[in-house]
Amino acid sequence: MTKKNRTMALGAFLPAPGHHLAAWRHPESHPQGGLEFDYYRRLALAAERGMFDLMFLSDGAGVRTAYKDADELSRQGRMVHFEPITLLSALATHTSHLGLVATASTSYNEPFNIARKFSSLDFLSNGRAGWNVVTSATDAEAKNFNLERQAPHADRYARAREFMEVVTGLWDSWEDDAFQFDKDSGRFFDPEKLHILNHQGEHFQVRGPLNLARSPQGQPVIVQAGSSPDGKDFAAHWAEVVFTVQQNLEAAQEFYRDVKQRAQDAGREPDQLKVLPGVFTVVGETHDEAEEKYQQLQSLVDPVVGLGMLSYQLGMVDLTGHDLDGPLPEMPAIEGSTGKQNVIVQHARENNLTIRELYLSIAAGRGHRFLLGTPVEIADQLEEWFVAGAADGFNVMPDMLPRGLDDFADLVVPELQRRGLVRTAYEGTTLRENLGLHRPAHRH
Amino acid sequence: MTKKNRTMALGAFLPAPGHHLAAWRHPESHPQGGLEFDYYRRLALAAERGMFDLMFLSDGAGVRTAYKDADELSRQGRMVHFEPITLLSALATHTSHLGLVATASTSYNEPFNIARKFSSLDFLSNGRAGWNVVTSATDAEAKNFNLERQAPHADRYARAREFMEVVTGLWDSWEDDAFQFDKDSGRFFDPEKLHILNHQGEHFQVRGPLNLARSPQGQPVIVQAGSSPDGKDFAAHWAEVVFTVQQNLEAAQEFYRDVKQRAQDAGREPDQLKVLPGVFTVVGETHDEAEEKYQQLQSLVDPVVGLGMLSYQLGMVDLTGHDLDGPLPEMPAIEGSTGKQNVIVQHARENNLTIRELYLSIAAGRGHRFLLGTPVEIADQLEEWFVAGAADGFNVMPDMLPRGLDDFADLVVPELQRRGLVRTAYEGTTLRENLGLHRPAHRH
Repeated sequence: MTKKNRTMALGAFLPAPGHHLAAWRHPESHPQGGLEFDYYRRLALAAERGMFDLMFLSDGAGVRTAYKDADELSRQGRMVHFEPITLLSALATHTSHLGLVATASTSYNEPFNIARKFSSLDFLSNGRAGWNVVTSATDAEAKNFNLERQAPHADRYARAREFMEVVTGLWDSWEDDAFQFDKDSGRFFDPEKLHILNHQGEHFQVRGPLNLARSPQGQPVIVQAGSSPDGKDFAAHWAEVVFTVQQNLEAAQEFYRDVKQRAQDAGREPDQLKVLPGVFTVVGETHDEAEEKYQQLQSLVDPVVGLGMLSYQLGMVDLTGHDLDGPLPEMPAIEGSTGKQNVIVQHARENNLTIRELYLSIAAGRGHRFLLGTPVEIADQLEEWFVAGAADGFNVMPDMLPRGLDDFADLVVPELQRRGLVRTAYEGTTLRENLGLHRPAHRH
Repeated sequence: MTKKNRTMALGAFLPAPGHHLAAWRHPESHPQGGLEFDYYRRLALAAERGMFDLMFLSDGAGVRTAYKDADELSRQGRMVHFEPITLLSALATHTSHLGLVATASTSYNEPFNIARKFSSLDFLSNGRAGWNVVTSATDAEAKNFNLERQAPHADRYARAREFMEVVTGLWDSWEDDAFQFDKDSGRFFDPEKLHILNHQGEHFQVRGPLNLARSPQGQPVIVQAGSSPDGKDFAAHWAEVVFTVQQNLEAAQEFYRDVKQRAQDAGREPDQLKVLPGVFTVVGETHDEAEEKYQQLQSLVDPVVGLGMLSYQLGMVDLTGHDLDGPLPEMPAIEGSTGKQNVIVQHARENNLTIRELYLSIAAGRGHRFLLGTPVEIADQLEEWFVAGAADGFNVMPDMLPRGLDDFADLVVPELQRRGLVRTAYEGTTLRENLGLHRPAHRH
């Protein structure tokens, strides 16, 4: 298996001021960081110090939390932040090796605009851009784009598939060596190396060419996090990095085998699709210190916010009227991604949790694997999954920032390096080189 | 008149590798600069050294030149470059006083996305973002967005007007002091200071709120360049900076009076709309040196490119089949902006130019006022218009970059400073402060 020859891929998933629901209320946190460049610059440099492959910003085209009124919303801590592509463009010139992965929706953008922005980011970063492709999953976003409700799941994926054809086609508008800038002959480019896309499809008619040259990576790295059957098929065809929510080893191994097999069935090399489960982390010098850090954050969870978050994580399921100290009711059918809901419901049933216990238990990782302990304890758990064929690496979700990222970079990574599981120097300068992904050949 | 109390506003209009059509073929030019961050960083720092208020990037959602085939296109020098908002986001953290103005189209974007990106740029730059609002003007762009032809001029403006209502409404989603981050009470923001837009219009239904706080300038500065009646009315209502194409003093004075009057009629202070005619510049230590620089560039114009450029500047009017050494034919009705066409046609008729003479005569400024000479000569001409009520400042269009911008910053600006016409230190740190524009009060 190739993974024995390679080290773990590490993503740093960095929402200000951290992943724990109450991170913003922690005495050491800086809740205004989501709109401060210096805050993010410090985070990016910590990720680079920690030999992370990439930093990742999730995104929604609107306030994505479920809320009944402004009072409830005002207790939540994450609704304002930089637009990711602008922030990563700025960070590109302050970093040298870190991959820069922004989320953007295929439902509320046009492919020509997305192709341009990620190509531009790839040039600004000299080959470190990645695009996390989402179809969006809330009516709150749809309402900002002339809709009352979002389009059905299958329709969003149909649009997303055609969207990818257009974007990747536009990225191949020009061959790598099309631009020769020949001043003497007056040829800016070789006309044989221009390819007009002329896409005529169900959702899009896009002529091209793109008004950027082919970018340093050939194409920015495609990232995706779908876990529905549509999502996994999408990943098998398009994704080069897959983020996933996995709670236990067997399910993670099964998911890993499944998407690698699907990639192979789609004619791809399975090694060219990297599976990175999310891991929520609380790191302490001792186990007790980690536990204390966690309990301090748990004590700061507002019940109103806890219930709202649970509702959002279940796919905007309304839980008002149910007894917080009673069991989770049966779930209605939802239109969003169902993968995370399934994981959370299973977790509640297996552990016989009340609604209150459930929201507290996911206030940290929101359904993601929960790792708490010393650097050795956390390294043990990461190594177990990596060696057992459950992961090519991990998308690290620190409890609070910047402390949790510093702890991972400065305590956990050195332990992983001692075990030969994390690089001690970057292999290359592009995200593809560091992830071990091929640079895609031009289609012509 | 307030302008006597103020210095000139200066914009640096910076398409790589310069404004002259043949700039890319000049021995000193760097034609690949459009996709190199260090090239643009150097330009931005030169503009800041020259006390410019802002740098400006034009943009099209596609290759905007008129061309019949790849052979013709391959002789043109401007079709690939950074996407402006990503580039300016990166430049924001390398500059401290320079305004950063990007073009974006209301025809091929959604208002929620545009509101986010410019707000994000305003945060990244600590208050130096500006948006040049365009409705786009070519079928080449329309073909990248599911259309065969662009929408009619009046329809594009109707959409643009509603677009502005939505964007400015979203920018006021939160009052300036909405976010208090009160860790003790658990209130991230004051719910009384959140305002849901709930826009329900003909083109857009947008709920809001924006997922960014109110930005440092309250709202990014609105820039516009319309010269049709629709365009001037749009400017009167929305624009705070107006770029314009003006060839002679009387017409410039008339335009100046007209848009200021329209702004006043719309209930605005005329001083809160700054009129900046474009000026194409060739600077020499001596007049002869400037003339030599110009003739060297003129000698590099490819006739195929000259004719294509003329066709584009006239609004995609096809000129093939006409004798290059005969007169310009009558113009057909066009769907794009008509202001520039009118200026060019008038210029041809008044000077009795052949098609060849016409394209050569606008190969430099493409219809803009043409200034060639020593720093004193150029300063004289700028001062004349500024004092005569034809301009609040100028949008400077250097012949080639970086040389032409360096010459303006290091030779012309010191001469203007000696006359008290250009600042010797920035008045403030935001674009509004430097332009003398009010920070808009929140609407609630």
